[in-house]
Amino acid sequence: MNSLQNDTFLRALLRQPVEYTPIWIMRQAGRYLSEYNETRARAGSFLDLCKNPALATEVTLQPLERFPLDAAILFSDILTIPDAMGLGLYFSEGEGPRFQHPLREEKAIRALSAIHPEEQLAYVPDAVRQIKAALSGRVPLIGFSGSPFTLACYMIEGRGGTEFHELKRMAYSRPELLHHILDVNAESVIRYLNAQIDAGVDAVMIFDTWGGALTASAYQEFSLEYMRKICQKLKRKNGGQVIPRILFTKGGGQWLESIAGVETDALGLDWTVDIAEAKRRVGGKVALQGNMDPAFLLTDPKTIEKEVARILGGFGRGNGHVFNLGHGISQFTPPENVLALVDAVHRVSKAYHPEKI
Amino acid sequence: MNSLQNDTFLRALLRQPVEYTPIWIMRQAGRYLSEYNETRARAGSFLDLCKNPALATEVTLQPLERFPLDAAILFSDILTIPDAMGLGLYFSEGEGPRFQHPLREEKAIRALSAIHPEEQLAYVPDAVRQIKAALSGRVPLIGFSGSPFTLACYMIEGRGGTEFHELKRMAYSRPELLHHILDVNAESVIRYLNAQIDAGVDAVMIFDTWGGALTASAYQEFSLEYMRKICQKLKRKNGGQVIPRILFTKGGGQWLESIAGVETDALGLDWTVDIAEAKRRVGGKVALQGNMDPAFLLTDPKTIEKEVARILGGFGRGNGHVFNLGHGISQFTPPENVLALVDAVHRVSKAYHPEKI
Repeated sequence: MNSLQNDTFLRALLRQPVEYTPIWIMRQAGRYLSEYNETRARAGSFLDLCKNPALATEVTLQPLERFPLDAAILFSDILTIPDAMGLGLYFSEGEGPRFQHPLREEKAIRALSAIHPEEQLAYVPDAVRQIKAALSGRVPLIGFSGSPFTLACYMIEGRGGTEFHELKRMAYSRPELLHHILDVNAESVIRYLNAQIDAGVDAVMIFDTWGGALTASAYQEFSLEYMRKICQKLKRKNGGQVIPRILFTKGGGQWLESIAGVETDALGLDWTVDIAEAKRRVGGKVALQGNMDPAFLLTDPKTIEKEVARILGGFGRGNGHVFNLGHGISQFTPPENVLALVDAVHRVSKAYHPEKI
Repeated sequence: MNSLQNDTFLRALLRQPVEYTPIWIMRQAGRYLSEYNETRARAGSFLDLCKNPALATEVTLQPLERFPLDAAILFSDILTIPDAMGLGLYFSEGEGPRFQHPLREEKAIRALSAIHPEEQLAYVPDAVRQIKAALSGRVPLIGFSGSPFTLACYMIEGRGGTEFHELKRMAYSRPELLHHILDVNAESVIRYLNAQIDAGVDAVMIFDTWGGALTASAYQEFSLEYMRKICQKLKRKNGGQVIPRILFTKGGGQWLESIAGVETDALGLDWTVDIAEAKRRVGGKVALQGNMDPAFLLTDPKTIEKEVARILGGFGRGNGHVFNLGHGISQFTPPENVLALVDAVHRVSKAYHPEKI
């Protein structure tokens, strides 16, 4: 039971019947929207924007004004937790997030302790409450966190997207040190997501951006096990409403069976996964979210609709599909192509949901 | 029949019995070796080194002097073909290869034609002949090329490792243009690898570095189909000796069955693939080459041996395994760790090859 005007997204995550396939877009509040860039300029930096609940609310709602999306997602960053731990998050223009004090010394690692979100990250539950009020039940709100492993990548390397030499050297030759960091991160993520649930989010998603850089066995040990622990300790309901959980390991297409073995409701799929095959492999256990290549949004409405039809046809009939991109939307996306995407998903998907509900 | 003193590598590729698991290392002649850096400094630039058969011979043999490797690989670059097409290859320090004239205009694309390696890339078969003479039958020599798709990535983007927006825009909305480039590239690769075979290489490998950036269906259409065509048109034998073919799509772990459906002898596996599962999936059709995470070489001999034992145990008994890394060796690798790796593979693998041959 909930008081949402549109709960299609939540029903799809719980593999219940829906009238059409719901859609939201990773990084839907972002640089491809001129109004976002205006708000961000007013805020100062990207971090200032994340830490200002009023402005975070403003940008969270912006894409909903333009497109009939089926969910909103909290505007924040995956690195708020290590920032709260004091590692000195900053953004280097054009090069992504960095930490001033990457974790390399055993002493600093042993001194690490889990955060208390209501104190150290109060701006996040504050933003959730403000966004929920502003949404006034139009669509569900998604809360999120980085995975313990992905947070550790940034904390140890001091940045993302490298070859992760420091992290891997630790994982492979001093695993007990990495496990300590991951324990602290997992406990922090549990508290952080539960604080978001208390503040009112309707679903939670864990972004494991870098788990796919590991060997299959190291992925199990250093990433998946900690997401399993989190899923077990998340609040299951809020005010009688079930809070669905979505796990997304980018580059994890080979490991869908293992990931679906964790107590989760849905898996995010990157664009390299064939969704028909994913459904065959794990569709009986979890809902699937994805997975159009974001590069299709750089083409034209006709090409986009053809790809939408291909993905919807791949999933076919049955419950448990949330449409999304397979990765965050590109800043170079023309907004009119997003409108074409959302329209195509809603229109074309009706044929796959013919039953009366 | 061949006159090699050590043909273990070739037998493993053809899934014939061997006494131990052979090993070579992607980028084994490279910056982690001081003698390589000295030769390269003498040559001038990286490209000068590739284009000088005497110096290319020198660096090809350097790792064999240090480590008892079971194969040598032609020292060259995957981008020699587009360089011969006139796209202006250059190397920007610390940022990898670039092209001065990326292919973006339809007119330039339509004007593209396949290369004639014996004229335009004579330095490559020249190097093969000199290396074969210098090896005097110690171990087999591997020839190689980039895949048509991977070459196209660099040709269209002008560089590697980006999000491939230009390439994908073309693939998704003007596929006929990309297919023209791929046709020309495939014909060029066929001629190029056949020229290497004529000059004496004992096996050939196709590096599809960026195929894993595509959707599953686009991978089939734009990358795998062209590798299939190449495999069909490669010279099968030279002087009575079968020339094994190895296909390596980095990030292609989800698609092993499709790749093994191409007429190839072996698949390269990146480090994210579980080799036991890969063997179960495709080990009845092809040999497997791989797949230790190169980051293990940044640790210590004990950690390396443990991982070697894990991978060898994963493959288990039976024929058809060539040990390698799952990606090129890091420039930060201590050479003594490479010695530990080669020794561990040779020593530990004997238990998996107990039968008399």
